[in-house]
Amino acid sequence: MIQRPRGTRDFTPQEMETRRYLEGLFRREAELHGFGEIATPIFEHTELFTLKSGSNIIDEMYAFEDKGGRQIALRPELTAPSMRFFVNELTNYPRPLKLFYFGQCFRYERPQSGRYREFFQFGAELIGAPNPESDAEVIGLAADLIRRSGLTNYNIRIGHIGVLRGKLSEGGVTSEKAAPILQKLDKRLYDEARPLMLDAGLSEGAMDEIVSTTRIIGPPELLDRHPGEASDYLREVFAILGDYGITNVQVDLGVVRGLDYYTGIVFEIDAPCLGAEKQICGGGSYSLTELFGGEKVFSTGFAIGFDRTLLALEREGLTPARKRLDAYVVPTSDAMRRKAFAVVGMLRREGIAADVDLMRRSVGKNLKYADSVGARNVIIVGEKEDAQGSVTVRNLVSGEQKLVSLQDLANSVK
Amino acid sequence: MIQRPRGTRDFTPQEMETRRYLEGLFRREAELHGFGEIATPIFEHTELFTLKSGSNIIDEMYAFEDKGGRQIALRPELTAPSMRFFVNELTNYPRPLKLFYFGQCFRYERPQSGRYREFFQFGAELIGAPNPESDAEVIGLAADLIRRSGLTNYNIRIGHIGVLRGKLSEGGVTSEKAAPILQKLDKRLYDEARPLMLDAGLSEGAMDEIVSTTRIIGPPELLDRHPGEASDYLREVFAILGDYGITNVQVDLGVVRGLDYYTGIVFEIDAPCLGAEKQICGGGSYSLTELFGGEKVFSTGFAIGFDRTLLALEREGLTPARKRLDAYVVPTSDAMRRKAFAVVGMLRREGIAADVDLMRRSVGKNLKYADSVGARNVIIVGEKEDAQGSVTVRNLVSGEQKLVSLQDLANSVK
Repeated sequence: MIQRPRGTRDFTPQEMETRRYLEGLFRREAELHGFGEIATPIFEHTELFTLKSGSNIIDEMYAFEDKGGRQIALRPELTAPSMRFFVNELTNYPRPLKLFYFGQCFRYERPQSGRYREFFQFGAELIGAPNPESDAEVIGLAADLIRRSGLTNYNIRIGHIGVLRGKLSEGGVTSEKAAPILQKLDKRLYDEARPLMLDAGLSEGAMDEIVSTTRIIGPPELLDRHPGEASDYLREVFAILGDYGITNVQVDLGVVRGLDYYTGIVFEIDAPCLGAEKQICGGGSYSLTELFGGEKVFSTGFAIGFDRTLLALEREGLTPARKRLDAYVVPTSDAMRRKAFAVVGMLRREGIAADVDLMRRSVGKNLKYADSVGARNVIIVGEKEDAQGSVTVRNLVSGEQKLVSLQDLANSVK
Repeated sequence: MIQRPRGTRDFTPQEMETRRYLEGLFRREAELHGFGEIATPIFEHTELFTLKSGSNIIDEMYAFEDKGGRQIALRPELTAPSMRFFVNELTNYPRPLKLFYFGQCFRYERPQSGRYREFFQFGAELIGAPNPESDAEVIGLAADLIRRSGLTNYNIRIGHIGVLRGKLSEGGVTSEKAAPILQKLDKRLYDEARPLMLDAGLSEGAMDEIVSTTRIIGPPELLDRHPGEASDYLREVFAILGDYGITNVQVDLGVVRGLDYYTGIVFEIDAPCLGAEKQICGGGSYSLTELFGGEKVFSTGFAIGFDRTLLALEREGLTPARKRLDAYVVPTSDAMRRKAFAVVGMLRREGIAADVDLMRRSVGKNLKYADSVGARNVIIVGEKEDAQGSVTVRNLVSGEQKLVSLQDLANSVK
């Protein structure tokens, strides 16, 4: 028997209802915030991703050569394709340009619990000005998306890459040496960061201060104890988030997102119920377009792990109930089959989700089928009722049964 | 500058609004008909597609070897993956099982007008019984989807593969020799079909009759002149479609869909405004699961070319108007910026699509931006109005301007 490829998933109708429901909530919320959806191809030239993330990323991608000899990769994320699209075609759009996307991404790695080779991301990018209001707008959207999902237990943590970069630079660390240190600090791998910091010439005292800075997590007031430009900037972002009505946010100076293209603000959202793999959103302000051959622009964006967010909702018992069929139509005899088709055709035109026996089953077996597919009502089309222009409607939720004329039928099962 | 791969597309926010709108119409209509959505991976084991369509299809696919040495292909269509999913996991679901899908497919061929290497299909499969009501249910869904799209000029043509297969078999043609003949007839390549028919031992008279049969297109009553089992079956399908209220259907005995796995009914929908590449939907009843290692089941399905349907709608001038931003909020001074954020936060919580100046622009430049992004209203947050707990609302459609209190604001821009 042919199986699906390892690390991928199929989704049943019940799963798709939940997934489309959350996707729809996210889409409407992004539109409320004035963001417009874009879509880019499933694959890109491999170079797009190596320019952004370095050549090591090839090992983690589905990268291949197409029949024309082109190096192609299934997209591992959607920020690079969005910025490539912007550079190619959207530079003349009015700024700020507020974009969002939803789609599959791919990574080639050992499949493990909750990590798939094909996974889904919902994200947004704002291209405009490097200022606190743009950053707050993007963080505000991420916060409102997660709130809208219904998740109750999560943390929004905001930092600024300038705080640690500043302390490293004060200690005489060059930006080349700073990058790997920041990557270790971002993952809170202090034992691996210390030898690198030592090698970069930092004193014990400077190292201790840097490590303790990454542990500053809490209310925005904590910033008062760490004055400086980055702090002032963060304070403004928190103030605007407050104006937007978003107050469930923390400062976390250990959020670094150790990649060179981040330029200022960085933030993460985590759902503690997910344990070790708890991050459901990551973002920040960055500059990528010049790498792809465009002019430099200032951007802020984020990506939400759609699958992990669903998993967190599931753990909180919050996946939406599946929709049900409004009506399942059952003829009582072969002579009534044609009438049943006419009834179901009429109901569908009235916007009622209706289905009908296609298997020529007995009434008893049809009632069982109606129950198994979750129909709310069964409509029985019998000869006696038909003679009066009526049908019998049985509500499978309440058990109530009544005779209904054809012209009242649509309303009675709505 | 890095470009997107050849033959692929990016979609702007305006394009995505149209695409998501049609996708939503299609999804709701399929749900009204009792079909449930499924999703399968973007890539599959290559074997899945060669089993269904023969090894020649490899040349037309994005087929590659993954890092684990597996032969993988980007899916060229969605019937094989759907049936693979069914065989793997859905055989215990109640029958009939009514499934639909929407997603990207891929083909490696020279890009040409209206044909892309990444394209989108919307399709459905019904797995149940081999009877006219199941076939009518599936054709009925296809017909209602196209009707729901708003397209006005299209043809639904229904045939039965048994008519021509029967005539070839009567003439002594083996099923091996029949297959290539049927493929030529399906494409109406009569000059290429004739030598094959001659080689298979058909008389001139038999050949003429076969060719003239493929030219029978018109109202279902034409079937009366061609009696037989297949005709009787088709008549029942047309009758049930009539019960469903679907009467804009024709018989077309030249629809053959020359592939072995089709078992009976075959149908196509075309939009004449598209010229030579006018087919927007193709389907029929088929049997595939036993090829994939499952039990034999009876299925009927179709796929709609989503991109071509959109193109046809566009040619008819029917693409939906793009949605607009409900309100764009403009502060009259730096002191009013924070108030503006609070106003926009409040509006979004009330379900109003609202945006705000993030670029610290002058009022004049903000009005220009509001217009360029299609805002319906501009809300001006000024110091004088603020002192009265009010803002100025200017309707950009009517030009009307008025003072509105903050508590009435949401209702006034809805």
